[in-house]
Amino acid sequence: MKIASYVKDGKPTFGLLTEAGLVTLGGLVPGVDSLRAALAADALPRLAALSQGAAPDAQLADVTLLPPVPDPRRIWGMGLNYAAHAAETGREVTREAPVLFFRDAATVVAHGRPVLRPKVSTHYDFEGELAVIIGKGGRHIPVDRAMDHVAGYACFMDGSVRDYQKRSLPTGKNFESSGAFGPVMVTADEVPDPARLHLTTTLNGAVVQQAGLEQLIHTIPDLIAYFSTILSFEPGDVIATGTPAGVGAARTPPLWLKAGDVVQVEIPGVGQLENRVEDEG
Amino acid sequence: MKIASYVKDGKPTFGLLTEAGLVTLGGLVPGVDSLRAALAADALPRLAALSQGAAPDAQLADVTLLPPVPDPRRIWGMGLNYAAHAAETGREVTREAPVLFFRDAATVVAHGRPVLRPKVSTHYDFEGELAVIIGKGGRHIPVDRAMDHVAGYACFMDGSVRDYQKRSLPTGKNFESSGAFGPVMVTADEVPDPARLHLTTTLNGAVVQQAGLEQLIHTIPDLIAYFSTILSFEPGDVIATGTPAGVGAARTPPLWLKAGDVVQVEIPGVGQLENRVEDEG
Repeated sequence: MKIASYVKDGKPTFGLLTEAGLVTLGGLVPGVDSLRAALAADALPRLAALSQGAAPDAQLADVTLLPPVPDPRRIWGMGLNYAAHAAETGREVTREAPVLFFRDAATVVAHGRPVLRPKVSTHYDFEGELAVIIGKGGRHIPVDRAMDHVAGYACFMDGSVRDYQKRSLPTGKNFESSGAFGPVMVTADEVPDPARLHLTTTLNGAVVQQAGLEQLIHTIPDLIAYFSTILSFEPGDVIATGTPAGVGAARTPPLWLKAGDVVQVEIPGVGQLENRVEDEG
Repeated sequence: MKIASYVKDGKPTFGLLTEAGLVTLGGLVPGVDSLRAALAADALPRLAALSQGAAPDAQLADVTLLPPVPDPRRIWGMGLNYAAHAAETGREVTREAPVLFFRDAATVVAHGRPVLRPKVSTHYDFEGELAVIIGKGGRHIPVDRAMDHVAGYACFMDGSVRDYQKRSLPTGKNFESSGAFGPVMVTADEVPDPARLHLTTTLNGAVVQQAGLEQLIHTIPDLIAYFSTILSFEPGDVIATGTPAGVGAARTPPLWLKAGDVVQVEIPGVGQLENRVEDEG
């Protein structure tokens, strides 16, 4: 299933994206009016059954798309998770010391919405990533049970402000509307082996990053197990799994994003996330 | 005013802490059932007027205390904000590059609740701090208007897991229940000049940190102005303003927290926050 979150008739809701259109699921089960609430209630299977064969009640063009989980309790980010990207940043990585950070939910926008280059910096950079969406929460999750906690996947643009990132990693990762997440969540059953996914980032149509997800230094189960030693996962939490080589900061001369640029993160089988860069107003 | 958040009759609420006891404010204004909601609605002055002269409806001993803002949208943390602490960590600090990080709300407990040394580390350290609670949100707040955005103050224990902090700053700052915040919020009108406050951290009764808040490298207005260039503040956001010298990691031999230890952060005029250390269960 492809699950979209969107505003319809002025209210945030969520639904099934089918070839014929959107089948709104919000409200079909009392109290379940968001994807995060559906995950917390483990209601997706029931919602799928309830909506089986239903005609679409909206088209994508008629709604305002939101990030797949518009209100995640937290977005976990992984730094330096591809060897070639670690090398281009001049950092040494070991399997023993994963670089965790958090992105605030207000730092990401939906597919099709503008991402913003902040007023205070011109060092605004792209990072294409696979996002994992957590279904079942938990702490101290064993690696061999970790995939049971995954609800689905989406594309992620971990937009980073590099001069501020030098001050501290969380600073560069937390500028308002500097990242993107979407367009929809593809449920885990449709992605039997995420290591076989392939990610391409394009900037104005030119390929700037390209990698297979089998290159992740810390695999998805590794990340879930490790992060859960620190803090409990909650349903709807998002993990940005790290970016491959090719970022703008590592190029000579550096390739910074500017107003009018179009960044696309494409992962066949998961989605195609496109955002235009605008200057912060 | 001293505003406490607590669970009464099984429901989270908030109220005025007076010498005679607690005057519950939750529900006096429709929809305003938490301190965060009261700040968002700018309802504290009205609530103070409505409750004037009311008899206490509970005593502290009868309720379960929560952190002053139990559900902040975010906790902003400032690293290396006292010169002597920066020196003891061997880091150079400049006024130009403030070290921002975020703590998840699930990483802090209320006054009197146990703080937890995680299973995976013995390098668990104390940091006594002043917390600032934001009343009015906003972006790009000018320094000279910044104090208008402060609702009040509380004590903060920015418990840090030092070996994990070396992997990445956010990791060491985000272990579940590793920090503390409270006991209550003292409203800003009772603290005319926060630079004149004095902070003392004690460990099992012995003074381990001591500093005047006039030593902050980045003052409270500086922090508010700078952080607001990155992301909008929302009512109820918390800023942990940084810790002075004396942390356990900088001692020879290091002084790590262990089960049974009692950490107290005292700021006369703001409060006295006390937590016992327990091992994560």
